[in-house]
Amino acid sequence: MKISILTLFPKMFVGPLTESIMWRAQDKKFLDLNIVDLRQFGIDERRTVDDRPYGGGAGMILRVDVIDNALKAIKAKPKTKGVKIVMTDAGGKLFTQKKAYEYSKLERLVIICGHYEGIDHRVHENLIDDTISIGDYVLTGGEIPAMVITDAVTRLIPNVIKPESLEEESHSLFTVDGLPATEYPQYTRPPVYNKWKVPEVLLTGNHGKIDKWRKSSN
Amino acid sequence: MKISILTLFPKMFVGPLTESIMWRAQDKKFLDLNIVDLRQFGIDERRTVDDRPYGGGAGMILRVDVIDNALKAIKAKPKTKGVKIVMTDAGGKLFTQKKAYEYSKLERLVIICGHYEGIDHRVHENLIDDTISIGDYVLTGGEIPAMVITDAVTRLIPNVIKPESLEEESHSLFTVDGLPATEYPQYTRPPVYNKWKVPEVLLTGNHGKIDKWRKSSN
Repeated sequence: MKISILTLFPKMFVGPLTESIMWRAQDKKFLDLNIVDLRQFGIDERRTVDDRPYGGGAGMILRVDVIDNALKAIKAKPKTKGVKIVMTDAGGKLFTQKKAYEYSKLERLVIICGHYEGIDHRVHENLIDDTISIGDYVLTGGEIPAMVITDAVTRLIPNVIKPESLEEESHSLFTVDGLPATEYPQYTRPPVYNKWKVPEVLLTGNHGKIDKWRKSSN
Repeated sequence: MKISILTLFPKMFVGPLTESIMWRAQDKKFLDLNIVDLRQFGIDERRTVDDRPYGGGAGMILRVDVIDNALKAIKAKPKTKGVKIVMTDAGGKLFTQKKAYEYSKLERLVIICGHYEGIDHRVHENLIDDTISIGDYVLTGGEIPAMVITDAVTRLIPNVIKPESLEEESHSLFTVDGLPATEYPQYTRPPVYNKWKVPEVLLTGNHGKIDKWRKSSN
Protein backbone atom coordinates (compact mmCIF):
# COMPACT_ATOMS: atom_id res chain seq x y z
CA MET A 1 0.00 0.00 0.00
CA LYS A 2 1.11 3.54 -0.74
CA ILE A 3 0.34 6.48 1.55
CA SER A 4 1.24 10.05 0.56
CA ILE A 5 0.92 12.92 3.01
CA LEU A 6 0.82 16.50 1.68
CA THR A 7 1.91 19.02 4.29
CA LEU A 8 3.41 22.44 4.90
CA PHE A 9 5.30 21.02 7.90
CA PRO A 10 7.15 17.93 6.69
CA LYS A 11 9.58 18.02 9.62
CA MET A 12 6.75 17.26 12.04
CA PHE A 13 6.85 13.71 10.74
CA VAL A 14 10.49 13.07 11.59
CA GLY A 15 10.01 11.27 14.92
CA PRO A 16 6.71 9.54 14.18
CA LEU A 17 8.03 8.18 10.91
CA THR A 18 11.29 6.82 12.17
CA GLU A 19 10.27 5.53 15.59
CA SER A 20 6.98 3.76 15.05
CA ILE A 21 5.08 1.06 13.24
CA MET A 22 5.11 3.28 10.16
CA TRP A 23 8.84 2.81 9.88
CA ARG A 24 8.70 -0.93 10.55
CA ALA A 25 5.99 -1.35 7.91
CA GLN A 26 8.08 0.56 5.38
CA ASP A 27 11.18 -1.33 6.25
CA LYS A 28 9.36 -4.59 5.52
CA LYS A 29 8.01 -3.15 2.23
CA PHE A 30 4.36 -3.45 3.29
CA LEU A 31 4.01 0.31 3.14
CA ASP A 32 5.41 2.94 0.81
CA LEU A 33 5.01 6.20 2.69
CA ASN A 34 6.03 9.54 1.31
CA ILE A 35 5.78 13.00 2.78
CA VAL A 36 5.23 15.69 0.16
CA ASP A 37 6.30 19.21 1.05
CA LEU A 38 3.60 21.54 -0.32
CA ARG A 39 6.05 24.42 -0.17
CA GLN A 40 7.84 23.11 -3.26
CA PHE A 41 4.65 23.80 -5.22
CA GLY A 42 4.58 27.46 -4.16
CA ILE A 43 3.72 29.81 -7.02
CA ASP A 44 6.61 32.27 -7.11
CA GLU A 45 10.22 32.79 -6.14
CA ARG A 46 9.21 33.03 -2.51
CA ARG A 47 7.29 29.74 -2.83
CA THR A 48 4.05 31.37 -1.73
CA VAL A 49 1.34 28.82 -0.94
CA ASP A 50 -1.44 30.94 0.55
CA ASP A 51 -3.15 34.29 0.20
CA ARG A 52 -5.81 36.44 1.86
CA PRO A 53 -9.46 35.33 1.62
CA TYR A 54 -11.73 36.93 -0.98
CA GLY A 55 -14.47 38.95 0.68
CA GLY A 56 -12.33 39.69 3.75
CA GLY A 57 -11.66 37.82 6.99
CA ALA A 58 -8.77 36.71 9.15
CA GLY A 59 -6.14 34.17 8.22
CA MET A 60 -4.45 33.00 5.07
CA ILE A 61 -6.06 30.52 2.69
CA LEU A 62 -4.10 27.72 1.04
CA ARG A 63 -4.32 28.10 -2.76
CA VAL A 64 -6.12 25.64 -5.03
CA ASP A 65 -3.37 25.69 -7.67
CA VAL A 66 -0.74 24.68 -5.10
CA ILE A 67 -2.74 21.61 -4.05
CA ASP A 68 -3.62 20.76 -7.65
CA ASN A 69 0.02 20.90 -8.74
CA ALA A 70 1.09 18.73 -5.80
CA LEU A 71 -1.56 16.12 -6.65
CA LYS A 72 -0.54 16.17 -10.31
CA ALA A 73 3.10 15.67 -9.35
CA ILE A 74 2.24 12.53 -7.37
CA LYS A 75 -0.26 11.44 -10.05
CA ALA A 76 -3.27 11.30 -7.72
CA LYS A 77 -6.82 11.99 -8.91
CA PRO A 78 -10.11 11.86 -7.00
CA LYS A 79 -12.76 9.29 -8.00
CA THR A 80 -10.12 6.73 -8.94
CA LYS A 81 -10.66 3.06 -8.13
CA GLY A 82 -8.45 1.83 -5.28
CA VAL A 83 -7.44 5.38 -4.39
CA LYS A 84 -8.78 7.88 -1.85
CA ILE A 85 -7.71 11.48 -1.48
CA VAL A 86 -8.74 12.74 1.93
CA MET A 87 -8.28 16.04 3.69
CA THR A 88 -8.19 16.40 7.46
CA ASP A 89 -10.75 18.96 8.62
CA ALA A 90 -12.40 19.62 11.98
CA GLY A 91 -15.77 19.66 10.20
CA GLY A 92 -15.19 16.39 8.31
CA LYS A 93 -16.65 12.92 8.77
CA LEU A 94 -15.51 11.28 11.99
CA PHE A 95 -12.67 8.78 11.53
CA THR A 96 -13.50 5.35 12.96
CA GLN A 97 -12.02 1.87 13.05
CA LYS A 98 -14.40 0.92 10.22
CA LYS A 99 -12.92 3.70 8.06
CA ALA A 100 -9.41 2.49 8.99
CA TYR A 101 -10.27 -1.03 7.71
CA GLU A 102 -11.74 0.43 4.55
CA TYR A 103 -8.63 2.54 3.87
CA SER A 104 -6.27 -0.35 4.65
CA LYS A 105 -7.68 -2.16 1.60
CA LEU A 106 -6.85 0.66 -0.81
CA GLU A 107 -3.89 0.61 -3.16
CA ARG A 108 -3.27 4.20 -2.31
CA LEU A 109 -4.29 6.75 0.29
CA VAL A 110 -3.44 10.45 -0.07
CA ILE A 111 -3.85 12.66 3.00
CA ILE A 112 -3.85 16.43 2.61
CA CYS A 113 -3.08 18.00 5.98
CA GLY A 114 -5.71 20.59 6.76
CA HIS A 115 -4.53 24.14 7.24
CA TYR A 116 -5.90 25.75 10.38
CA GLU A 117 -6.68 29.00 8.63
CA GLY A 118 -8.46 27.43 5.69
CA ILE A 119 -8.07 25.87 2.25
CA ASP A 120 -9.60 27.27 -0.94
CA HIS A 121 -13.03 25.68 -1.24
CA ARG A 122 -12.37 24.61 -4.83
CA VAL A 123 -10.11 21.92 -3.35
CA HIS A 124 -13.13 20.47 -1.47
CA GLU A 125 -15.28 20.66 -4.59
CA ASN A 126 -12.89 19.26 -7.17
CA LEU A 127 -9.77 17.62 -5.85
CA ILE A 128 -10.61 15.28 -2.96
CA ASP A 129 -12.84 12.32 -2.12
CA ASP A 130 -13.43 12.87 1.61
CA THR A 131 -12.87 15.23 4.52
CA ILE A 132 -12.01 13.49 7.77
CA SER A 133 -12.01 14.60 11.40
CA ILE A 134 -10.30 12.45 14.04
CA GLY A 135 -12.45 13.75 16.89
CA ASP A 136 -14.53 16.54 18.38
CA TYR A 137 -11.71 18.85 19.33
CA VAL A 138 -9.73 21.61 17.63
CA LEU A 139 -6.08 21.17 16.68
CA THR A 140 -3.63 23.63 15.15
CA GLY A 141 -3.12 21.68 11.95
CA GLY A 142 -3.76 18.46 10.10
CA GLU A 143 -0.35 16.89 10.68
CA ILE A 144 -1.13 15.03 13.93
CA PRO A 145 -4.48 13.84 12.50
CA ALA A 146 -2.59 12.54 9.44
CA MET A 147 -0.35 10.58 11.82
CA VAL A 148 -3.41 9.14 13.58
CA ILE A 149 -4.95 7.99 10.28
CA THR A 150 -1.64 6.60 9.00
CA ASP A 151 -0.99 4.66 12.22
CA ALA A 152 -4.53 3.21 12.41
CA VAL A 153 -4.48 2.18 8.75
CA THR A 154 -0.90 0.86 8.67
CA ARG A 155 -1.40 -1.63 11.46
CA LEU A 156 -4.28 -3.19 9.52
CA ILE A 157 -2.25 -3.79 6.35
CA PRO A 158 -1.86 -7.59 6.12
CA ASN A 159 1.23 -8.91 7.94
CA VAL A 160 2.28 -5.56 9.45
CA ILE A 161 1.36 -6.94 12.85
CA LYS A 162 0.86 -10.58 13.77
CA PRO A 163 -2.43 -11.94 12.40
CA GLU A 164 -3.17 -13.51 15.83
CA SER A 165 -3.12 -10.10 17.49
CA LEU A 166 -5.60 -8.65 15.01
CA GLU A 167 -7.71 -11.81 15.19
CA GLU A 168 -7.99 -11.57 18.96
CA GLU A 169 -8.76 -7.88 18.70
CA SER A 170 -11.27 -8.19 15.89
CA HIS A 171 -13.52 -10.33 18.10
CA SER A 172 -13.73 -7.64 20.69
CA LEU A 173 -13.95 -4.95 18.03
CA PHE A 174 -16.99 -6.27 16.31
CA THR A 175 -19.07 -7.37 19.24
CA VAL A 176 -19.55 -3.85 20.54
CA ASP A 177 -20.47 -1.56 17.63
CA GLY A 178 -16.99 -1.10 16.27
CA LEU A 179 -15.44 -0.07 19.59
CA PRO A 180 -12.68 -1.96 21.32
CA ALA A 181 -14.35 -3.72 24.21
CA THR A 182 -12.60 -2.90 27.46
CA GLU A 183 -10.23 -5.76 28.08
CA TYR A 184 -9.94 -7.55 31.37
CA PRO A 185 -7.46 -6.11 33.89
CA GLN A 186 -3.90 -7.28 33.34
CA TYR A 187 -1.13 -7.60 35.90
CA THR A 188 2.52 -8.49 35.91
CA ARG A 189 5.32 -8.70 38.49
CA PRO A 190 5.84 -7.80 41.26
CA PRO A 191 2.90 -9.64 42.92
CA VAL A 192 2.77 -7.07 45.71
CA TYR A 193 3.83 -3.45 45.38
CA ASN A 194 3.05 -0.68 47.88
CA LYS A 195 0.56 -3.11 49.49
CA TRP A 196 -1.22 -3.31 46.11
CA LYS A 197 -1.75 -6.98 45.35
CA VAL A 198 -2.31 -8.88 42.13
CA PRO A 199 -5.70 -10.70 42.44
CA GLU A 200 -4.95 -14.12 43.96
CA VAL A 201 -6.79 -16.12 41.34
CA LEU A 202 -4.21 -15.03 38.73
CA LEU A 203 -1.42 -16.58 40.76
CA THR A 204 -3.14 -19.99 41.13
CA GLY A 205 -2.35 -21.35 37.68
CA ASN A 206 -5.96 -22.62 37.52
CA HIS A 207 -6.93 -21.65 34.00
CA GLY A 208 -10.62 -22.42 34.39
CA LYS A 209 -10.86 -20.05 37.34
CA ILE A 210 -8.69 -17.46 35.63
CA ASP A 211 -10.88 -17.43 32.51
CA LYS A 212 -13.99 -17.09 34.65
CA TRP A 213 -12.49 -14.20 36.61
CA ARG A 214 -11.38 -12.45 33.44
CA LYS A 215 -14.82 -12.73 31.86
CA SER A 216 -16.48 -11.36 34.98
CA SER A 217 -14.00 -8.44 35.16
CA ASN A 218 -14.43 -7.40 31.55
CA MET B 1 1.31 25.48 32.46
CA LYS B 2 3.42 22.36 32.76
CA ILE B 3 2.82 19.23 30.67
CA SER B 4 4.83 16.04 31.24
CA ILE B 5 4.59 13.10 28.87
CA LEU B 6 5.76 9.66 30.06
CA THR B 7 6.70 7.40 27.17
CA LEU B 8 8.79 4.44 26.05
CA PHE B 9 9.34 6.19 22.68
CA PRO B 10 10.62 9.69 23.45
CA LYS B 11 12.09 10.11 19.97
CA MET B 12 8.62 10.02 18.45
CA PHE B 13 8.16 13.54 19.79
CA VAL B 14 11.14 15.05 17.98
CA GLY B 15 9.33 16.53 14.97
CA PRO B 16 6.03 17.41 16.64
CA LEU B 17 7.84 19.17 19.48
CA THR B 18 10.17 21.26 17.41
CA GLU B 19 7.94 22.13 14.45
CA SER B 20 4.59 23.02 15.96
CA ILE B 21 2.64 25.23 18.33
CA MET B 22 4.10 23.21 21.20
CA TRP B 23 7.50 24.62 20.44
CA ARG B 24 6.24 28.17 19.96
CA ALA B 25 4.34 28.00 23.27
CA GLN B 26 7.46 26.77 25.05
CA ASP B 27 9.62 29.35 23.43
CA LYS B 28 7.32 32.07 24.74
CA LYS B 29 7.32 30.46 28.21
CA PHE B 30 3.58 29.77 28.23
CA LEU B 31 4.25 26.06 28.33
CA ASP B 32 6.83 23.96 30.11
CA LEU B 33 6.77 20.63 28.30
CA ASN B 34 8.93 17.70 29.23
CA ILE B 35 9.18 14.25 27.75
CA VAL B 36 10.05 11.62 30.34
CA ASP B 37 11.70 8.45 29.06
CA LEU B 38 10.17 5.57 31.04
CA ARG B 39 13.12 3.38 30.11
CA GLN B 40 15.29 5.21 32.63
CA PHE B 41 13.05 3.80 35.38
CA GLY B 42 13.60 0.21 34.24
CA ILE B 43 14.20 -2.17 37.14
CA ASP B 44 17.50 -3.82 36.34
CA GLU B 45 20.71 -3.43 34.38
CA ARG B 46 18.84 -4.08 31.17
CA ARG B 47 16.33 -1.36 32.14
CA THR B 48 13.43 -3.79 31.92
CA VAL B 49 10.06 -2.02 31.98
CA ASP B 50 7.61 -4.83 31.25
CA ASP B 51 6.95 -8.49 31.95
CA ARG B 52 4.56 -11.31 31.01
CA PRO B 53 0.96 -11.14 32.27
CA TYR B 54 -0.03 -13.16 35.35
CA GLY B 55 -2.53 -15.85 34.42
CA GLY B 56 -1.19 -16.14 30.87
CA GLY B 57 -1.94 -14.31 27.65
CA ALA B 58 -0.16 -12.56 24.82
CA GLY B 59 1.93 -9.42 25.07
CA MET B 60 4.07 -7.75 27.67
CA ILE B 61 2.61 -5.66 30.47
CA LEU B 62 4.19 -2.41 31.63
CA ARG B 63 5.13 -2.69 35.32
CA VAL B 64 3.46 -0.68 38.08
CA ASP B 65 6.76 0.05 39.86
CA VAL B 66 8.24 1.60 36.71
CA ILE B 67 5.33 4.03 36.35
CA ASP B 68 5.29 4.76 40.09
CA ASN B 69 8.99 5.58 40.11
CA ALA B 70 8.63 7.85 37.08
CA LEU B 71 5.75 9.74 38.72
CA LYS B 72 7.73 10.08 41.95
CA ALA B 73 10.71 11.44 40.03
CA ILE B 74 8.58 14.19 38.49
CA LYS B 75 6.71 14.73 41.79
CA ALA B 76 3.24 14.00 40.40
CA LYS B 77 0.44 12.49 42.48
CA PRO B 78 -3.17 11.71 41.56
CA LYS B 79 -6.00 13.56 43.34
CA THR B 80 -3.93 16.74 43.62
CA LYS B 81 -5.59 20.14 43.11
CA GLY B 82 -4.63 21.78 39.81
CA VAL B 83 -3.05 18.56 38.56
CA LYS B 84 -4.36 15.72 36.40
CA ILE B 85 -2.55 12.48 35.62
CA VAL B 86 -4.13 10.89 32.59
CA MET B 87 -3.36 7.76 30.66
CA THR B 88 -4.21 7.28 26.99
CA ASP B 89 -6.27 4.13 26.48
CA ALA B 90 -8.55 2.93 23.67
CA GLY B 91 -11.17 2.12 26.33
CA GLY B 92 -10.93 5.50 28.10
CA LYS B 93 -13.30 8.45 28.17
CA LEU B 94 -13.55 10.23 24.82
CA PHE B 95 -11.41 13.36 24.58
CA THR B 96 -13.45 16.42 23.56
CA GLN B 97 -12.97 20.16 23.18
CA LYS B 98 -14.64 20.58 26.59
CA LYS B 99 -11.97 18.36 28.16
CA ALA B 100 -9.28 20.36 26.34
CA TYR B 101 -10.59 23.58 27.92
CA GLU B 102 -10.72 21.92 31.33
CA TYR B 103 -7.14 20.68 31.03
CA SER B 104 -5.88 24.06 29.74
CA LYS B 105 -6.81 25.58 33.13
CA LEU B 106 -4.66 23.14 35.11
CA GLU B 107 -1.29 24.02 36.57
CA ARG B 108 -0.05 20.68 35.45
CA LEU B 109 -1.05 17.85 33.15
CA VAL B 110 0.76 14.51 33.13
CA ILE B 111 0.10 12.15 30.22
CA ILE B 112 1.15 8.51 30.45
CA CYS B 113 1.34 7.07 26.94
CA GLY B 114 -0.66 3.86 26.84
CA HIS B 115 1.18 0.72 25.91
CA TYR B 116 -0.53 -1.28 23.21
CA GLU B 117 0.04 -4.57 24.99
CA GLY B 118 -1.21 -3.37 28.36
CA ILE B 119 -0.29 -1.65 31.61
CA ASP B 120 -0.48 -3.27 35.04
CA HIS B 121 -3.99 -2.59 36.33
CA ARG B 122 -2.64 -1.25 39.62
CA VAL B 123 -1.63 1.85 37.68
CA HIS B 124 -5.30 2.43 36.77
CA GLU B 125 -6.39 1.82 40.34
CA ASN B 126 -3.83 3.86 42.22
CA LEU B 127 -1.71 6.19 40.15
CA ILE B 128 -3.87 8.12 37.69
CA ASP B 129 -6.91 10.41 37.60
CA ASP B 130 -8.37 9.59 34.18
CA THR B 131 -8.05 7.35 31.14
CA ILE B 132 -8.59 9.13 27.83
CA SER B 133 -9.30 7.92 24.31
CA ILE B 134 -8.98 10.34 21.38
CA GLY B 135 -11.43 8.43 19.17
CA ASP B 136 -13.06 5.15 18.22
CA TYR B 137 -10.13 3.59 16.46
CA VAL B 138 -7.13 1.49 17.43
CA LEU B 139 -3.58 2.87 17.37
CA THR B 140 -0.27 1.16 18.07
CA GLY B 141 0.61 3.29 21.08
CA GLY B 142 -0.30 6.31 23.16
CA GLU B 143 2.31 8.65 21.71
CA ILE B 144 0.21 10.14 18.88
CA PRO B 145 -2.81 10.51 21.22
CA ALA B 146 -0.54 12.34 23.69
CA MET B 147 0.40 14.73 20.85
CA VAL B 148 -3.30 15.29 20.06
CA ILE B 149 -4.10 16.12 23.69
CA THR B 150 -1.04 18.35 24.06
CA ASP B 151 -1.81 20.28 20.86
CA ALA B 152 -5.50 20.77 21.69
CA VAL B 153 -4.70 21.91 25.23
CA THR B 154 -1.70 24.09 24.37
CA ARG B 155 -3.55 26.28 21.90
CA LEU B 156 -6.09 27.12 24.63
CA ILE B 157 -3.48 28.33 27.13
CA PRO B 158 -4.02 32.11 27.38
CA ASN B 159 -1.98 34.09 24.82
CA VAL B 160 -0.59 31.07 22.97
CA ILE B 161 -2.74 32.04 20.00
CA LYS B 162 -4.38 35.42 19.39
CA PRO B 163 -7.41 35.93 21.68
CA GLU B 164 -9.45 37.15 18.65
CA SER B 165 -8.99 33.80 16.92
CA LEU B 166 -10.23 31.87 19.93
CA GLU B 167 -13.06 34.36 20.47
CA GLU B 168 -14.32 33.92 16.92
CA GLU B 169 -13.99 30.19 17.21
CA SER B 170 -15.63 29.93 20.62
CA HIS B 171 -18.88 31.32 19.21
CA SER B 172 -19.11 28.58 16.67
CA LEU B 173 -17.84 26.04 19.18
CA PHE B 174 -20.52 26.56 21.73
CA THR B 175 -23.55 27.00 19.53
CA VAL B 176 -23.46 23.44 18.25
CA ASP B 177 -22.96 21.09 21.22
CA GLY B 178 -19.24 21.63 21.60
CA LEU B 179 -18.44 20.91 17.96
CA PRO B 180 -16.85 23.38 15.61
CA ALA B 181 -19.62 24.56 13.32
CA THR B 182 -18.67 24.10 9.68
CA GLU B 183 -17.38 27.46 8.56
CA TYR B 184 -18.43 29.17 5.36
CA PRO B 185 -16.47 28.31 2.21
CA GLN B 186 -13.29 30.33 1.79
CA TYR B 187 -11.51 31.25 -1.41
CA THR B 188 -8.34 33.04 -2.39
CA ARG B 189 -6.51 33.85 -5.62
CA PRO B 190 -6.58 33.03 -8.48
CA PRO B 191 -10.22 34.02 -9.19
CA VAL B 192 -10.47 31.40 -11.92
CA TYR B 193 -8.48 28.18 -12.01
CA ASN B 194 -9.20 25.22 -14.31
CA LYS B 195 -12.55 26.89 -15.08
CA TRP B 196 -13.33 26.74 -11.35
CA LYS B 197 -14.53 30.20 -10.34
CA VAL B 198 -14.65 32.00 -7.02
CA PRO B 199 -18.33 32.90 -6.33
CA GLU B 200 -18.91 36.34 -7.85
CA VAL B 201 -20.39 37.90 -4.75
CA LEU B 202 -17.01 37.57 -3.00
CA LEU B 203 -15.37 39.72 -5.66
CA THR B 204 -17.92 42.56 -5.41
CA GLY B 205 -16.57 44.21 -2.29
CA ASN B 206 -20.19 44.56 -1.09
CA HIS B 207 -19.87 43.49 2.53
CA GLY B 208 -23.61 43.32 3.18
CA LYS B 209 -24.05 40.85 0.35
CA ILE B 210 -20.90 38.93 1.30
CA ASP B 211 -22.09 38.47 4.89
CA LYS B 212 -25.48 37.30 3.69
CA TRP B 213 -23.90 34.80 1.28
CA ARG B 214 -21.56 33.49 3.96
CA LYS B 215 -24.41 32.96 6.42
CA SER B 216 -26.46 31.11 3.82
CA SER B 217 -23.49 28.91 2.85
CA ASN B 218 -22.62 27.93 6.41
